[in-house]
Amino acid sequence: MRPAVVLFSGGLDSSTCLAIAKQDGFAPHALSVRYGQRHAFELEAAGRVAAALGVPLKIVELDLRSIGGSALTDDIAVPKEGLFAGIPVTYVPARNTILLGIALGYAETLKARDIYIGVNAIDYSGYPDCRPAFIEAFEKLANVATAAGGPYEVHAPLIRLSKAEIVKLGTRLHVPYRLTHSCYDPDAEGRACGRCDSCRLRAAGFRDAGVPDPTPYSSR
Amino acid sequence: MRPAVVLFSGGLDSSTCLAIAKQDGFAPHALSVRYGQRHAFELEAAGRVAAALGVPLKIVELDLRSIGGSALTDDIAVPKEGLFAGIPVTYVPARNTILLGIALGYAETLKARDIYIGVNAIDYSGYPDCRPAFIEAFEKLANVATAAGGPYEVHAPLIRLSKAEIVKLGTRLHVPYRLTHSCYDPDAEGRACGRCDSCRLRAAGFRDAGVPDPTPYSSR
Repeated sequence: MRPAVVLFSGGLDSSTCLAIAKQDGFAPHALSVRYGQRHAFELEAAGRVAAALGVPLKIVELDLRSIGGSALTDDIAVPKEGLFAGIPVTYVPARNTILLGIALGYAETLKARDIYIGVNAIDYSGYPDCRPAFIEAFEKLANVATAAGGPYEVHAPLIRLSKAEIVKLGTRLHVPYRLTHSCYDPDAEGRACGRCDSCRLRAAGFRDAGVPDPTPYSSR
Repeated sequence: MRPAVVLFSGGLDSSTCLAIAKQDGFAPHALSVRYGQRHAFELEAAGRVAAALGVPLKIVELDLRSIGGSALTDDIAVPKEGLFAGIPVTYVPARNTILLGIALGYAETLKARDIYIGVNAIDYSGYPDCRPAFIEAFEKLANVATAAGGPYEVHAPLIRLSKAEIVKLGTRLHVPYRLTHSCYDPDAEGRACGRCDSCRLRAAGFRDAGVPDPTPYSSR
């Protein structure tokens, strides 16, 4: 089976993406980047989900806290008042450019030509590096960036799906959603806050899909 | 003065690039990435050169050793037998894609629109991510990648210069070359080996420019 690198946070979207890469016939290599997220629960979830799907997981350390600029890496409060127009403070500057760059390097060492990323242009909180134009531009860059030469394909299978469609697809592929973690601001036991943007999008996805939500929520 | 991010290793090329950014009228912010290089002398040199030029230096940690694939980050011997055709083992998979990605994130937090990178397509050891097509593709990516939106300009002022032309230009701009470090495999005191590709290109640059070579070489 051909190898593929799957960018993987342990959240709902990237876990679904990992299952899709398997379904597409690839031997997926999950890649997580510990980039200074404020809590470790995401990567614990990544380990659990990768083990459940029988996929190797590589973790790369990158300290993005030193450049700052985001509520996910700085001591800026995560907003809890619901979704607003505009790009939220949880945006991490150039995050997906950096993550895809590391994925490209890993793909080159594995002799892989395929990279999966679970970005979503519909229910996506307004992040610019989740749009089709961004993915296409990265693919063009990848094809002139490496010694291997490519051609590389950047798969973004969720990009035009709603959160409910993602949940339905992943449920069909037996994604262990109860093991995944999406919350930006969990409690000390790793339970989801239920109020940040990520929790709101996730909960609405299960609700609209008519799938029971297995997320452990905090009682705060 | 407008800010600019300058990717900066403490070597000959990026030190020249830093001086060019100043000359171009920017307030440069030097950015070094400790990506698992085998020795720390590069970043010590970066600190010395930035201080000498009066420029702030940010260092970001990224552990690329975990993905491997290069003599610069793995326990693979650095070749000493001279320059050959083809891409050498010192190539780091997707390195400049990753470095420019981090530079883009830093530029966004600084509200900078300009990024400098000291790549060189002439005396460049055959690295694919030093070519004009790569820089142009990254600039296109940057313009769809961030919340700030751009337009971003990726400056590669050395890209079509020979090493001798770089040395002449930098000498005119008073780059403190004796403080810079280029060697892939220095001795325990940080002195250059004089035999790796990087040393050979650097020494030939000084020789062809008719500029005395201030590099401290090991006596091995």
